[in-house]
Amino acid sequence: MQIHPLDVILHKRDGLPLSTSEIEALVRAIVDKTITDAQIAAFLMAVFFRGLNPEELAALTKAMRFSGETFDATPLHTFTVDKHSTGGVGDKTSLLIAPILAAAGLASPTPAGVPGICVPMISGRSLGHTGGTLDKLETIPGFDTQLSMPRFEEVLHQCGAALIGQTPRLVPADRILYGMRDHTGTVESPYLITASIMSKKLAESLNALVLDVKVGSGAFMPTYDLSRQLAQLMVATGEREGTRTVALLTTMDEPLGRFSGNWCEVRECVDIMRGTRHVMSRDLITLSNILSGWMLHLAGHAETPEAGAKLADQYLASGAAYQAWLKIISAQGGDTTIFDNPDAHHPAATTQLLAPTSGYLSSMDCKEVGWAVQRLGAGRAKPGDPVSAAAGIEVHAKLGDRVTAGQPLVTLFADTEAQLAEPHAMLAATYTITAEPPTLQPQIREVITQ
Amino acid sequence: MQIHPLDVILHKRDGLPLSTSEIEALVRAIVDKTITDAQIAAFLMAVFFRGLNPEELAALTKAMRFSGETFDATPLHTFTVDKHSTGGVGDKTSLLIAPILAAAGLASPTPAGVPGICVPMISGRSLGHTGGTLDKLETIPGFDTQLSMPRFEEVLHQCGAALIGQTPRLVPADRILYGMRDHTGTVESPYLITASIMSKKLAESLNALVLDVKVGSGAFMPTYDLSRQLAQLMVATGEREGTRTVALLTTMDEPLGRFSGNWCEVRECVDIMRGTRHVMSRDLITLSNILSGWMLHLAGHAETPEAGAKLADQYLASGAAYQAWLKIISAQGGDTTIFDNPDAHHPAATTQLLAPTSGYLSSMDCKEVGWAVQRLGAGRAKPGDPVSAAAGIEVHAKLGDRVTAGQPLVTLFADTEAQLAEPHAMLAATYTITAEPPTLQPQIREVITQ
Repeated sequence: MQIHPLDVILHKRDGLPLSTSEIEALVRAIVDKTITDAQIAAFLMAVFFRGLNPEELAALTKAMRFSGETFDATPLHTFTVDKHSTGGVGDKTSLLIAPILAAAGLASPTPAGVPGICVPMISGRSLGHTGGTLDKLETIPGFDTQLSMPRFEEVLHQCGAALIGQTPRLVPADRILYGMRDHTGTVESPYLITASIMSKKLAESLNALVLDVKVGSGAFMPTYDLSRQLAQLMVATGEREGTRTVALLTTMDEPLGRFSGNWCEVRECVDIMRGTRHVMSRDLITLSNILSGWMLHLAGHAETPEAGAKLADQYLASGAAYQAWLKIISAQGGDTTIFDNPDAHHPAATTQLLAPTSGYLSSMDCKEVGWAVQRLGAGRAKPGDPVSAAAGIEVHAKLGDRVTAGQPLVTLFADTEAQLAEPHAMLAATYTITAEPPTLQPQIREVITQ
Repeated sequence: MQIHPLDVILHKRDGLPLSTSEIEALVRAIVDKTITDAQIAAFLMAVFFRGLNPEELAALTKAMRFSGETFDATPLHTFTVDKHSTGGVGDKTSLLIAPILAAAGLASPTPAGVPGICVPMISGRSLGHTGGTLDKLETIPGFDTQLSMPRFEEVLHQCGAALIGQTPRLVPADRILYGMRDHTGTVESPYLITASIMSKKLAESLNALVLDVKVGSGAFMPTYDLSRQLAQLMVATGEREGTRTVALLTTMDEPLGRFSGNWCEVRECVDIMRGTRHVMSRDLITLSNILSGWMLHLAGHAETPEAGAKLADQYLASGAAYQAWLKIISAQGGDTTIFDNPDAHHPAATTQLLAPTSGYLSSMDCKEVGWAVQRLGAGRAKPGDPVSAAAGIEVHAKLGDRVTAGQPLVTLFADTEAQLAEPHAMLAATYTITAEPPTLQPQIREVITQ
């Protein structure tokens, strides 16, 4: 029996459960363009109001996952694992986690000679107040984020990890829906976010997935409960599809680590992997180790996530992660000599935000800090806009730190002097110093498993 | 401050009240095509779920009303009044009401020589299971439903009533939204229905409006309560704009009158206006008189609606309504000689549905009867399809009538024999005869005023 898109819209609108066939027909119509934009938008808004039951959400995610080309990890005969973050400011854990896991994989090859763990990381670009892994990596001269699927598989085989962008043929239904949601007011549905994220991640053919769901003033979801709901939906959807899925709710009340931007974030990770652990990078290192720990645990390399985190720190400290990093960057065409003298690259105009009074750095609107970084040129106002490699910020104090009037709180970088004033004002307005020390949230708020 | 359509969508989605400026900006964007179809659909679906408060509904109706050309009755210096029905099967009251009111208007000219009442009736076409006044009138050779505004005014000046179709320049926002709602599952919102109906009716520059809101198995709204809600919304919206508005909830459990179709409905009205009151037309005559009675009452021609109904019946009985009818038809280019020998026109293939048993005609799905009429060729499957002038049905029994096995219940007309079988089966399946007489609803269920 022919399924009409209009009936699917009406059923969802009226709160009737959709069958898998109805959802498959809808996703096919979206990709085949036999449904109008107006109908897609009407469906999305109906889902915004009605939600999706677990069967519907799994069916939508699966139909989207298989709406185009998928990555098939079977020929690799390895354990595939990835991490996904809902996005934050200065959130560069991917740049540490991929080499840590690659190091672990290279250290434990399978009988077929493939790394024992593979991280087929398909990442996104900066949008809004959050940074994008691809934009950061592309500050490395020659680094190619647009590998073909066969080349992607080769790099994985050789290095145990690869970091690429979404291809037009991968999960095309998500590309269409994502573009549509953006201008129809249907972005903030936990169901649609879950289907979007999980369809792309599951298309990586994963044995396990660790999700970093941000909470706090820099998080995408506006409340703790909504972040929690999103985490639960993603975990349930992943597990339903046979991927071991764990979500960590982590605090995003200030930029993660020392730098937020593009090239500066790569530098921070290279410093860490080379053994320089700046005090401002402490939260970044801890979170990267915890997330890596969960991945190593799920991959059977550690008995507990805590043991996994210790193991991760060892790969960092031993230089094994850095060696894996250099291997990945080279394999993807990147010029690794840039890491030898990082200061010589991507020079920037700078200014500083000074502490107006003495006291404790007690709060900021982390989203506003993200927007300031975007305004410096590190992010984009709309998809397709160019980003600056040099733009970003360096923080000289973390929340709870005691500061003295006149000391630098933040150094701002931009391509031109003119771009510094507005972000400076934005930061000045949101950085708050108080006489009493603030009460801070722990970095890991909750772990969601099934 | 610039208003962005996306913000208007988000505000409605999140249940925030929209300002009049926001609604005006949205309607302007719809007409100017600076908003995408997807955004319009998202807005409509958000309204479906959130509804509109009285201020929003009035603002939307007003912005749509003034989205293009409007009819200005001021130069006529007369009392303008119209009737609108939410649509039924065999619902041809407009064809009686327009001449009745015109007769009353011609009988009481203003000092300026204009009829004392004018009915600037802008009607629609058949769609779905309901008939359309324009399709019926166009079975009269030469009758022009596409008058220009100046010509419309001339006919009103001369005849006291005119019956035309919506022009492309009249209420363009509704044309766009109506076409969009149809395929995005946003038809059944009482708020959007109110804005659609009332924007078009108020664009007629009315002093008073009488609404015939159908309830029962042939009604557009699925429940009594929803019909009632729609009636209340329309009355409140009309009164807010300064138009005296009354709604009657009337029963639509079987076709109204003797015929349902196109030419056959015109014939039925001509018979009545010429003095032949067939027993099967009784409900039609009663309802037309009651609706006309309210219009005459609101226009100050009768002290009560009941007195108005009696007056209406006198205009029918005296032949004054028929004279007004001939005048209107001629003024709009129609060939009135067709009424002299109605049988000679629009010949049809026919068949009959016979009573399978004796008993009482006790029920039918009136919507299904409407669809049977549509399948005979009298209606259309989609906008723009041609309709048959000859197609339709004649009923030989009304609900509650005692029938004898083998007697004809319905005569079916179509352009070809081949078109008769399916509608015959549809009617056979829905016409129900029982041993006991049914309990029937009164014709007028409720009157809604403010």
